[in-house]
Amino acid sequence: MTRKLLGKPIADEIKAQNVKRAAAFAENTGVRPTLCVIRVGEREDDVAYEQSIARAAAGAGVNLTTRLLAADCKQEELTAAIEAASGDEKIHGILLFRPLQGHLDEKAALGKIASSKDVDGVTESQMARLYEAKRPADGFFLPCTAESVLQILRYYEIPLAGRKAVVIGRSTVIGKPVSLLLLAHDATVTIAHSRTENLPQICRDADILVCAAGMTVESDEGGLRGGVGREYLSEGQTVIDVGIHSDDESNLFGDVDECAAADLAAAYTPVPGGVGSVTTQLLLRHVIDAADLHSGTPPMPERLE
Amino acid sequence: MTRKLLGKPIADEIKAQNVKRAAAFAENTGVRPTLCVIRVGEREDDVAYEQSIARAAAGAGVNLTTRLLAADCKQEELTAAIEAASGDEKIHGILLFRPLQGHLDEKAALGKIASSKDVDGVTESQMARLYEAKRPADGFFLPCTAESVLQILRYYEIPLAGRKAVVIGRSTVIGKPVSLLLLAHDATVTIAHSRTENLPQICRDADILVCAAGMTVESDEGGLRGGVGREYLSEGQTVIDVGIHSDDESNLFGDVDECAAADLAAAYTPVPGGVGSVTTQLLLRHVIDAADLHSGTPPMPERLE
Repeated sequence: MTRKLLGKPIADEIKAQNVKRAAAFAENTGVRPTLCVIRVGEREDDVAYEQSIARAAAGAGVNLTTRLLAADCKQEELTAAIEAASGDEKIHGILLFRPLQGHLDEKAALGKIASSKDVDGVTESQMARLYEAKRPADGFFLPCTAESVLQILRYYEIPLAGRKAVVIGRSTVIGKPVSLLLLAHDATVTIAHSRTENLPQICRDADILVCAAGMTVESDEGGLRGGVGREYLSEGQTVIDVGIHSDDESNLFGDVDECAAADLAAAYTPVPGGVGSVTTQLLLRHVIDAADLHSGTPPMPERLE
Repeated sequence: MTRKLLGKPIADEIKAQNVKRAAAFAENTGVRPTLCVIRVGEREDDVAYEQSIARAAAGAGVNLTTRLLAADCKQEELTAAIEAASGDEKIHGILLFRPLQGHLDEKAALGKIASSKDVDGVTESQMARLYEAKRPADGFFLPCTAESVLQILRYYEIPLAGRKAVVIGRSTVIGKPVSLLLLAHDATVTIAHSRTENLPQICRDADILVCAAGMTVESDEGGLRGGVGREYLSEGQTVIDVGIHSDDESNLFGDVDECAAADLAAAYTPVPGGVGSVTTQLLLRHVIDAADLHSGTPPMPERLE
């Protein structure tokens, strides 16, 4: 019997904590925990993500403020917006939507985010801490999507220590941070990517397969489907799907062929309803953590170790 | 026919460059490139490493200055020594010997090294750059031992792109930086460690095996030998040995059982005479790079990409 690892129960649990903590923070300090989203232009993905953050923030009692810059803005304008947010006492967390337009220097921009407000773990000091971590610990912010993968594995009690985990994808947004987190949980981690030879076989060999490579293939019906099909999967596996794509009718799907996963794997996360649903609540948790740290409130104990 | 991958031809090549560049720097600026070694106490390994650096530095025309602190020194004394070296115009590179004595905070100490003098890639900003690197590039310093592994693989033209590399060890000194460097060279990288299940089988499956876990076993004669024996190795493999141990008679040996490697593998690095012999010359190269950067001289082009 294949288990469908839904994000909802985890998201609900974190949401309940977020609501309580955000209310307590507002009561103690007179202000709400506040996230500043910085968005350049009107990319469809960015707008959709911003809307889902806005809904979740409203539900949790977290303030959202948006700094919107024109698609053709200059680097100095972006820098000024980030520095203003970094220096603004009323803002506790900053999220810069990426990838940026090609004419902008993303690394330079990320470097302007105050480390204490870096709720998605994108600054040098947060990355270095993750890189060094023997066990991920309190006091810094993991990239939200990578943390979401680990939250799901832990919530559903998938054993990690000593097991073979294969991560497809090597970006600093997902592939590398997920790999380091799995390693910190004592998994044996293989990082695979577009240049990997015999990728299907390497994937079949995994106990835990994390797909974060944006893989799609043409389906028999002519449209697209997840590119990680039967030949990548084997019995007993846990498959975590971080991909997100939409077809012509705006139906969402992931990197994994869900029918194949449901048929072959021991457990898998669906898209939608899996990793993505946990990510936004983790982002809000980080905003509240940052607000608490800023005001000197001791951090809450229940966290991903 | 098994190939023995000696470090000497690579070390000789880098040394010849170092000699030329250090002389040119001294002629242009009136001072020699200068490395400051900071050592706490009299650990045997540290003293031996310092002596080998001193010999190599003298041979290359690089100045070595040592700050020696008592084994029971206070954190503030260590901080003061590092800050003094970081602020000293006449010092171009800083190397802090590790591990530190248990009462000292290593992370705090490393954080005091000026990033521009961090010739072993131990500061947060250097680590973050390696973590982010799509391809390792100029302008920052890789951890010397990890870079040495890659120099050897490239010098002997071992194909990396798409190949399966297994790294045993997950330290920030060797395991993680080697893994990221192999990944940046498009290898499919598995990070294995003490908690890995079926380690011998995972190792046999590798095209390139990097051993950096300090593995020894009792030999039939009663002493110790490298713990990576026949059961970890397979035909056609390239085996890189980063381990270094010494027996009762002060003979050096590595993590790998050299007889088994000579018998089974396609190529392997000996200990001594392999990775270690390249590392010190790379350290000196970094000192000259740092000196050049400091004085505004354009960096030399021949480098590990």
